[in-house]
Amino acid sequence: MENKAFQEYYPNDLSHCYGCGTLNAHGLQIKSYWDKDESVCVYTPMPYHTAIPGIVYGGLIASIIDCHSTGTAAAAKYKTENRAMDTLPPLRFVTASLNVNYLLPTPLDCPLEVRGKVKAIKGRRVVVESRLIADGKVCATGEVVAVQMRENMMPTNTKK
Amino acid sequence: MENKAFQEYYPNDLSHCYGCGTLNAHGLQIKSYWDKDESVCVYTPMPYHTAIPGIVYGGLIASIIDCHSTGTAAAAKYKTENRAMDTLPPLRFVTASLNVNYLLPTPLDCPLEVRGKVKAIKGRRVVVESRLIADGKVCATGEVVAVQMRENMMPTNTKK
Repeated sequence: MENKAFQEYYPNDLSHCYGCGTLNAHGLQIKSYWDKDESVCVYTPMPYHTAIPGIVYGGLIASIIDCHSTGTAAAAKYKTENRAMDTLPPLRFVTASLNVNYLLPTPLDCPLEVRGKVKAIKGRRVVVESRLIADGKVCATGEVVAVQMRENMMPTNTKK
Repeated sequence: MENKAFQEYYPNDLSHCYGCGTLNAHGLQIKSYWDKDESVCVYTPMPYHTAIPGIVYGGLIASIIDCHSTGTAAAAKYKTENRAMDTLPPLRFVTASLNVNYLLPTPLDCPLEVRGKVKAIKGRRVVVESRLIADGKVCATGEVVAVQMRENMMPTNTKK
């Protein structure tokens, strides 16, 4: 895997996201990487990210899947354009839809691994499927339809 | 609307959820009420709940819709059983699936209102549809399939 996460390539003005922004001190700061043809993100929940005692809160799972998927969409689009991820203009994606299926209660006391796969790239839309693995079991699956942000939606200064 | 929120009826041992537990000091502590045949929850995001500057983080929207919907499912089930919400054994729901469609960027500087409607109750499953309104506009819609927890999934002491 590469040493630099997808999110570490985002320009500063696009790095304030609660889920994945490297500049959001209150946020989750998730980090995503390529691992061959899959993207992977490992996040260890805090003790207070609980649903019922010992079980991870479903909203956290949705949040990680969301940001990991939009990050994967961006990284995939850079690849298809044969561009390095730090080249301008930035390619960033927002979520059009997020679907999560909760298959098993997710244990709180271990790292959560989310693995994503690009299912389709069509114009500005990228569909990313993912699964969340905890303690060796797939506890949730997700599908995100991500849409590339138009430049006029971006903050005015998107330089790094 | 009633003065006491659905979540304030939950037994202490089921009140640690990051999204809606009244005993989770780090959590969102969302509160849901009946308003005629709809359930309503109003949450004002913190400045750090951002996606891009000025816009609410989608994972927060998913989290509010999730907890508001499982709370609505429980409240609806108590209704169908003609039971007060503080009677034992408690009726609590977990999320089987969560679908969110993001229709418009959601502004960060105003309260977010989520309104839920029970679409179906079938055995232990309750389907709740919802919409998130900010500044007078429907910015997202959600559908949650909630499943009633079995008593053996609950923490051992569920007394209030």
